[in-house]
Amino acid sequence: MASTEGQVITCKAAVAYEPNKPLVIEDVQVAPPQAGEVRIKILFTALCHTDAYTWSGKDPEGLFPCILGHEAAGIVESVGEGVSEVKPGDHVIPCYQAECRECKFCKSGKTNLCGKVRAATGVGIMMNDRKTRFSINGKPIYHFMGTSTFSQYSVVHDVSVAKIDPSAPLEKVCLLGCGVPTGLGAVWNTAKVEPGSIVAVFGLGTVGLAVAEGAKAAGASRIIGIDIDNNKFKRAKDFGVTEFINPKDHEKPIQQVIVDQTDGGVDYSFECIGNVSVMRAALECCHKGWGTSVIVGVAASGQEISTRPFQLVTGRVWKGTAFGGFKSRSQVPWLVDKYMKKEIKVDEYITHNLTLGEINKAFDLMHEGGCLRCVLTMH
Amino acid sequence: MASTEGQVITCKAAVAYEPNKPLVIEDVQVAPPQAGEVRIKILFTALCHTDAYTWSGKDPEGLFPCILGHEAAGIVESVGEGVSEVKPGDHVIPCYQAECRECKFCKSGKTNLCGKVRAATGVGIMMNDRKTRFSINGKPIYHFMGTSTFSQYSVVHDVSVAKIDPSAPLEKVCLLGCGVPTGLGAVWNTAKVEPGSIVAVFGLGTVGLAVAEGAKAAGASRIIGIDIDNNKFKRAKDFGVTEFINPKDHEKPIQQVIVDQTDGGVDYSFECIGNVSVMRAALECCHKGWGTSVIVGVAASGQEISTRPFQLVTGRVWKGTAFGGFKSRSQVPWLVDKYMKKEIKVDEYITHNLTLGEINKAFDLMHEGGCLRCVLTMH
Ligand SMILES: NC(=O)c1ccc[n+]([C@@H]2O[C@H](COP(=O)([O-])OP(=O)(O)OC[C@H]3O[C@@H](n4cnc5c(N)ncnc54)[C@H](O)[C@@H]3O)[C@@H](O)[C@H]2O)c1
Ligand SMILES: NC(=O)c1ccc[n+]([C@@H]2O[C@H](COP(=O)([O-])OP(=O)(O)OC[C@H]3O[C@@H](n4cnc5c(N)ncnc54)[C@H](O)[C@@H]3O)[C@@H](O)[C@H]2O)c1
Ligand SMILES: [Zn+2]
Ligand SMILES: [Zn+2]
Ligand SMILES: [Zn+2]
Ligand SMILES: [Zn+2]
Repeated sequence: MASTEGQVITCKAAVAYEPNKPLVIEDVQVAPPQAGEVRIKILFTALCHTDAYTWSGKDPEGLFPCILGHEAAGIVESVGEGVSEVKPGDHVIPCYQAECRECKFCKSGKTNLCGKVRAATGVGIMMNDRKTRFSINGKPIYHFMGTSTFSQYSVVHDVSVAKIDPSAPLEKVCLLGCGVPTGLGAVWNTAKVEPGSIVAVFGLGTVGLAVAEGAKAAGASRIIGIDIDNNKFKRAKDFGVTEFINPKDHEKPIQQVIVDQTDGGVDYSFECIGNVSVMRAALECCHKGWGTSVIVGVAASGQEISTRPFQLVTGRVWKGTAFGGFKSRSQVPWLVDKYMKKEIKVDEYITHNLTLGEINKAFDLMHEGGCLRCVLTMH
Repeated sequence: MASTEGQVITCKAAVAYEPNKPLVIEDVQVAPPQAGEVRIKILFTALCHTDAYTWSGKDPEGLFPCILGHEAAGIVESVGEGVSEVKPGDHVIPCYQAECRECKFCKSGKTNLCGKVRAATGVGIMMNDRKTRFSINGKPIYHFMGTSTFSQYSVVHDVSVAKIDPSAPLEKVCLLGCGVPTGLGAVWNTAKVEPGSIVAVFGLGTVGLAVAEGAKAAGASRIIGIDIDNNKFKRAKDFGVTEFINPKDHEKPIQQVIVDQTDGGVDYSFECIGNVSVMRAALECCHKGWGTSVIVGVAASGQEISTRPFQLVTGRVWKGTAFGGFKSRSQVPWLVDKYMKKEIKVDEYITHNLTLGEINKAFDLMHEGGCLRCVLTMH
């Protein structure tokens, strides 16, 4: 590794030149890390819906050309000035949600939403010089979510790197960069589900299944899975879902169906789709007096949620979660350890394995009911 | 008192025959309490906006003719079969929010919204025989909120009666039947404001001022009062408001004004008006990551609240409160004791005193900026 330190690395990356056009595998120049930055050799990356959302062009903050990807694992290649918490050779998970431990957010003890590098990562650049580290023949390529893991090498801020157990299989734990922690944390950190609770999970993709798994671990007595695809139920049982409802099988609004089946509503509900009308249903299926609904899905830009205020005045609570409320650098390593102790599933979410060169096929797979996570081998 | 026990009492009451038509002071027959009921000699009652709302005809659940009123104090005249917790002569506050200590809600430990008599009080009748205890020459008059305190005598369910310190001045503590506990409890029970918090209070009527008082007691460092009436600020200072903003003085949306003045938003906000667009502003002026907004105001039927789900995904929490989350029979006596120990204000909310015969004038007063609570002497 010493040979590349301080050098520009030319490697393969999947470049999104334009919304909705197939990604192009290119030779990309990756500049060395500057002060407070880390260059990571990405070994495995999965695809998540946020990648697909930005790629689709529906994200008004999406910038092109860019390198997408944010659910990955790799090994530190080199570090910039002043970086002390990781060194070359460390096994790491890049984290789109940074954790600086110094800002108002980090010090509040109330949220995982660090504000340190947000102003740069939100516009596809690095803090230090407000420029990108990726280029092709001198033409800059934007970063994405501060991670850009669809590249064999990526440069990230040091506050966005979680150092993990080197014995953990990177081809699996890459999933702990987004979807699985989001679902588990929505239950454990945001909702704080108690034993005996009745839980409703809307959408049984990776995030919804992780919610179910988290709810089961928290001791929920009933875990009601709701999906418009009947095929989701069989697999969902393995993740803890005890009952399945397909809204299409009912005339009544789904919230009424659930209220009827639960003597007044559920204790906790989770929206894991990104559909604003389902978000409303998820709130309204909660029990009067205490039911709490957590929005996990990301809705398309500009869309709004609505309800009658009476729903809240009579005791329901509406919340949301980003990365499940986990503090990334502190808690991703803890999640890796839990996986190593077989306390949480990871392997079970991986339905497909492809290579970087097959990334467009991997995007296509996301629209297929059978696909949860597709992991790409990067080298 | 023994002379009226078991007898029909004929007394004065203000009857609402039709929406928006002046109330009529009538001789009303009040039947004796049946099993589980208590007949109360109402000595003092205040007016609250919920009375005005139903009277206006905008409440789709409003039933006419009825006897309004729900913020009052009196003395037990007689009790029905099986009533053990109060006896004739006890000083009491009728509570529109019941507390049976037996239902799913009461036993949950999570809410004050007792469900025991809701099915009757919601439709203006008593549980025992599903009939009214009020009539005029045999024609039934509906109850309202299970309290109907605009009558010299009223019959209520035993689960809706809080027995209080007999030395407390009933002409003052009648206010502890609704508005003041709602504001205090929104802060103490629903939001659980911590010392040092920055708080925004939208609407500086009785409820908003009680929120300010509660926030001051909880140790809030800044209490920002927002009202469209500049006259509200002077008085609000006495209740703890440290800063005042009139949205009409600003071009920018009020949520943006507040975010700018608070380095990112407030820790807690309270909507004490009943305006759905203010409810949205109250949520959106909260700090990313943890800001919690509590809806206290009651919006007109059919109106809806909206926001972008991103507001919740980035950590804001949307809640509401009914009677400030206080368990009525258990905690109203405690509030009376706090008042007697001078730990909470009550007298300061009373701006006007009139008699039952002047009730229509009292309703008019509610629309005047200078009026907080008007207390009617009933006998
Ligand atoms: N808040 C965060 O930090 C965060 C992190 C990761 C992902 N997400 C979001 O979580 C959501 C779910 O991600 P995923 O990877 O599990 O997605 P997914 O597409 O694999 O799963 C969604 C599921 O919802 C079902 N569905 C679609 N419409 C439905 C409807 N109307 N009613 C019921 N079910 C319906 C689909 O059949 C599918 O099973 C996405 O919006 C994603 O962007 C949020
Ligand atoms: N949730 C509950 O249990 C509960 C209990 C009691 C009262 N309430 C409700 O609380 C609300 C307040 O009650 P109150 O007695 O204090 O009312 P109020 O009318 O005395 O006070 C409302 C205040 O809001 C101000 N206001 C009006 N529109 C405004 C705007 N757009 N922006 C800023 N300020 C504005 C008015 O000038 C006034 O000072 C009412 O909706 C009432 O029905 C709820
Ligand atoms: Zn993701
Ligand atoms: Zn930080
Ligand atoms: Zn009231
Ligand atoms: Zn009860």
